Amino acid sequence: MKIDLDQSSRTGEIVSARPVDGSIRQAPRHLTSREYRPAGTVVNIDGVKVGLTELVVMAGPCSVESAEQMLRIAHEVKAAGATVLRGGAFKPRTSPYDFQGLGKAGLEHLRAASRETGLKVVTEVMDPREVELVAGYADCLQIGSRNMQNYPLLNEVGMSSKPALLKRGLAASYKEFLLAAEYIMAQGNEQVILCERGIRGLSNELRFTLDLNAVPYLKERTHLPVIVDPSHGTGSAHLVPAMSLAAIACGADGIIVEAHYSPADSISDAAQTISTADFADLMKDIAAVAEAVGRKVHLPMVR
Amino acid sequence: MKIDLDQSSRTGEIVSARPVDGSIRQAPRHLTSREYRPAGTVVNIDGVKVGLTELVVMAGPCSVESAEQMLRIAHEVKAAGATVLRGGAFKPRTSPYDFQGLGKAGLEHLRAASRETGLKVVTEVMDPREVELVAGYADCLQIGSRNMQNYPLLNEVGMSSKPALLKRGLAASYKEFLLAAEYIMAQGNEQVILCERGIRGLSNELRFTLDLNAVPYLKERTHLPVIVDPSHGTGSAHLVPAMSLAAIACGADGIIVEAHYSPADSISDAAQTISTADFADLMKDIAAVAEAVGRKVHLPMVR
Amino acid sequence: MKIDLDQSSRTGEIVSARPVDGSIRQAPRHLTSREYRPAGTVVNIDGVKVGLTELVVMAGPCSVESAEQMLRIAHEVKAAGATVLRGGAFKPRTSPYDFQGLGKAGLEHLRAASRETGLKVVTEVMDPREVELVAGYADCLQIGSRNMQNYPLLNEVGMSSKPALLKRGLAASYKEFLLAAEYIMAQGNEQVILCERGIRGLSNELRFTLDLNAVPYLKERTHLPVIVDPSHGTGSAHLVPAMSLAAIACGADGIIVEAHYSPADSISDAAQTISTADFADLMKDIAAVAEAVGRKVHLPMVR
Amino acid sequence: MKIDLDQSSRTGEIVSARPVDGSIRQAPRHLTSREYRPAGTVVNIDGVKVGLTELVVMAGPCSVESAEQMLRIAHEVKAAGATVLRGGAFKPRTSPYDFQGLGKAGLEHLRAASRETGLKVVTEVMDPREVELVAGYADCLQIGSRNMQNYPLLNEVGMSSKPALLKRGLAASYKEFLLAAEYIMAQGNEQVILCERGIRGLSNELRFTLDLNAVPYLKERTHLPVIVDPSHGTGSAHLVPAMSLAAIACGADGIIVEAHYSPADSISDAAQTISTADFADLMKDIAAVAEAVGRKVHLPMVR
Repeated sequence: MKIDLDQSSRTGEIVSARPVDGSIRQAPRHLTSREYRPAGTVVNIDGVKVGLTELVVMAGPCSVESAEQMLRIAHEVKAAGATVLRGGAFKPRTSPYDFQGLGKAGLEHLRAASRETGLKVVTEVMDPREVELVAGYADCLQIGSRNMQNYPLLNEVGMSSKPALLKRGLAASYKEFLLAAEYIMAQGNEQVILCERGIRGLSNELRFTLDLNAVPYLKERTHLPVIVDPSHGTGSAHLVPAMSLAAIACGADGIIVEAHYSPADSISDAAQTISTADFADLMKDIAAVAEAVGRKVHLPMVR
Repeated sequence: MKIDLDQSSRTGEIVSARPVDGSIRQAPRHLTSREYRPAGTVVNIDGVKVGLTELVVMAGPCSVESAEQMLRIAHEVKAAGATVLRGGAFKPRTSPYDFQGLGKAGLEHLRAASRETGLKVVTEVMDPREVELVAGYADCLQIGSRNMQNYPLLNEVGMSSKPALLKRGLAASYKEFLLAAEYIMAQGNEQVILCERGIRGLSNELRFTLDLNAVPYLKERTHLPVIVDPSHGTGSAHLVPAMSLAAIACGADGIIVEAHYSPADSISDAAQTISTADFADLMKDIAAVAEAVGRKVHLPMVR
Repeated sequence: MKIDLDQSSRTGEIVSARPVDGSIRQAPRHLTSREYRPAGTVVNIDGVKVGLTELVVMAGPCSVESAEQMLRIAHEVKAAGATVLRGGAFKPRTSPYDFQGLGKAGLEHLRAASRETGLKVVTEVMDPREVELVAGYADCLQIGSRNMQNYPLLNEVGMSSKPALLKRGLAASYKEFLLAAEYIMAQGNEQVILCERGIRGLSNELRFTLDLNAVPYLKERTHLPVIVDPSHGTGSAHLVPAMSLAAIACGADGIIVEAHYSPADSISDAAQTISTADFADLMKDIAAVAEAVGRKVHLPMVR
Repeated sequence: MKIDLDQSSRTGEIVSARPVDGSIRQAPRHLTSREYRPAGTVVNIDGVKVGLTELVVMAGPCSVESAEQMLRIAHEVKAAGATVLRGGAFKPRTSPYDFQGLGKAGLEHLRAASRETGLKVVTEVMDPREVELVAGYADCLQIGSRNMQNYPLLNEVGMSSKPALLKRGLAASYKEFLLAAEYIMAQGNEQVILCERGIRGLSNELRFTLDLNAVPYLKERTHLPVIVDPSHGTGSAHLVPAMSLAAIACGADGIIVEAHYSPADSISDAAQTISTADFADLMKDIAAVAEAVGRKVHLPMVR
């Protein structure tokens, strides 16, 4: 982060975000703006493309719990049509006494499930010192809501060669969200996916308020793909299918869903995790809505 | 509202909300709860049914501006597939110096356009003293967001024979929203449509945050139909199509949209009003998404 | 409200807010703006002045429960230094099945307590049809948060000769709050007190978020007095003293507090009602803070 | 952070927040709870005590701009009564193209100003890799709002021997705020000051909504000192004095204020920075309000 990369060779005009002398440097225009790449960016997660007609569906448990759990879930969500596997190895938890994730062992379970199934892996990185470690196992680096404005982390991910999945902060404006992505791009990593995952709302009746206005609003302003997390965005498994369809209908480039073969046994986020069986049903509905709006999803031949 | 109606003949068990002696009376259960009518309520707007497989599409200008304007818009939205005409004759405006609506003349223009086209009329009533007047012209009485907890108005509409369209308050919880509908039902009027229209959000980048979580959440808890207003819910005409589709995808029973043949000339809400031409295009997209989720819309034979 | 009052004799330039022909009329400037009356407005509640160096303290129960209750509380809050008695006779309640107030009988109890103690009466009016009735008993007409944008009510209070206490809506911006007061002033009633009473916050840990920024912000922009309601603003009796002091420290012209000799027995708002004994203690602390900021409160000679 | 410290020697019962095996461990009670230390914690910033009758006043510029700037401001705020000097060397900025701070040079300027004036230094640390560096210059480590849930940073500060100043996140509930402090304490650092600095509100009329309810609410629930930042909490220099007084009146243990001899020339946060001259005036008003609520401030002999 303290390295003063000369990125002019890549962008033709942008210099590093944190110059050594602390001076202010103006970007001639924002790298995240639609004008920068009018046709839209396609993010490539080791072969899975995000931002094309085909939607991306990422699914998996909240937390990596064991090698067996990951492998079973990976097989089940793959059979339903997912192409990217999610699962947390480093877990940001509100309380220091809650399960903090399996750490490196979790990364290994994710990688093993990926090798077995061909699914790509997206998993969260919380610590700038762990970006290299996580990038050694993941195909896409997730930055969580709590860290949307963790600039050392954004900068470090910006220097990684792996694509980034940036989640919106709980109270972040659209502008702040885009400027967080700008941090990553300013360091040279232009493979950024934005994820709307719900904002803090006006009551506690639901965990969050999924702000789908963000999808068409952001798609107008940025060339980056935008996906939606209906699991955190509702906090309620029974609302996940409806809001997944809504996300696709308003133009999202995909969704990221928490799914587990036995949601009630999830070590975290049980209330918002759908069963892999329900996920398979949801995929069929998603396919129908996707077609209605000119998109499509990957559906395996044999169901 | 001060009349102590014995409503037991209608509901079998509910007594008036404001007893003469001010004592507390317990409702044995909430009239708005799903348990009260598990199969769901179908609201009948003079023949247009809301709450069935066929979606309701209400469209029209923010304000009634003239007889000619209403008639032209009525023809255009009818041709595109709308079955209910919207338009404000009594306008709640943030500033007392803004256009306050044509009042009774506006009601007459709405009625005239209805006679000509067969569209049903929904229009706002703001004053309990005007409920009878507005009910003389309208097929459905709209209660606006600012008045969601205007209890004298709710009670008066509760004693009307016309269906009610109740919009969610800007900061209302789901529970408060349902209890506002409960006021109407407690007075004997069980023909209530709920309308999600956006809540106050965390920045001013958009006028409001459309809370589509409300749709599946409310549909679980109440038997009343739920529709969505993507015009107020976004405040931006260019976001209206995407959010209309999202509303349908997540289970709304219809939408209410601001449309005008010349949005820029609208006397109010110009920024969020779509053209009747765009509305016609939108109807086709709505039809596709509706079909994808097992619903349908009324589409005229000849386009 | 439908009367087209020519108010030019009073303001020299303002005409009615709802002209008969619905046309738009521009106010040459806002009546609520500080520029309109740079020296500040002093509202006169039948002899109790609001907006001078001496702070106003309004106290009393949430609801009028009986003649005896009102009389006892009136004596106790008067002894502690209050000069205005509060109490709800017409209660806006979220549920239609909650106690809706004693209505006219409640007004009579308030008046009787006033006659006995000399305290002035502030009480809420919810219905434009009841403004005249309530004005017959009250010295100041309260418009509650739910009705901040109930324009027929604002207009009717604007035509009353009694001062108005306007509470901020739960999600109202400062501008919307001032424009609501503008409705009242535009009808000719320039005796308006603004009341910050808490806005909807980001969690349910407290009932509301008391927004004291509103006090200095509004005092800059308007000549109208600004008071604070720490009872609704916190929803918690144990936070009321601290927030009362904060309100005075940041420049409020007074407070309105829910107090009852036996808070736990209050028919409504028990959790946020302080005891009259605690109120007496609070008054001494208020006196000290008031002095520190160049204000004072009325403290009876004999305690 | 990956070290499994056995902290039982310090707390008698708490173990590390991130055990090596990722298992869940229950804290027997929260270290931040009032019950843990009923008498209240006094945080010692190299001799300046926070949490006693005497209030702490921290003042200084938003950003460290130069050695001269820091020295001049340090002298001026010290003369007015401040005992802790604030100033950002590592600046979290919404845009990567804004001034990011002088970094290590800024820390040196802070230290130099401290040596000259005797003021203690509080400055922000954003990166877990820089905690040791910043702790080498600062007397108190500030964790900013954006990083309230940056757990690697919290853990690292929790292992430092320097006191921490933890700012509330923009949308953090009180519980989340306390649990963030719990992370620091769980690592063994019990010297934590909480800082209310405004939450995201419902309009953009002010930058933030200062939530002073937080002060008495938190003081009830935790033994940790609570201070207030009226500069960020209002975003407007002209509101800072009023809200500083309100903070003291409702029980804050101190304030942290942005002050500059020439606010308009501040490289950041100019709109919310007060002049050192106004700061000196404010200190006198604070002294008066402090006395009214049984507190006091340090006021230098000669003014």
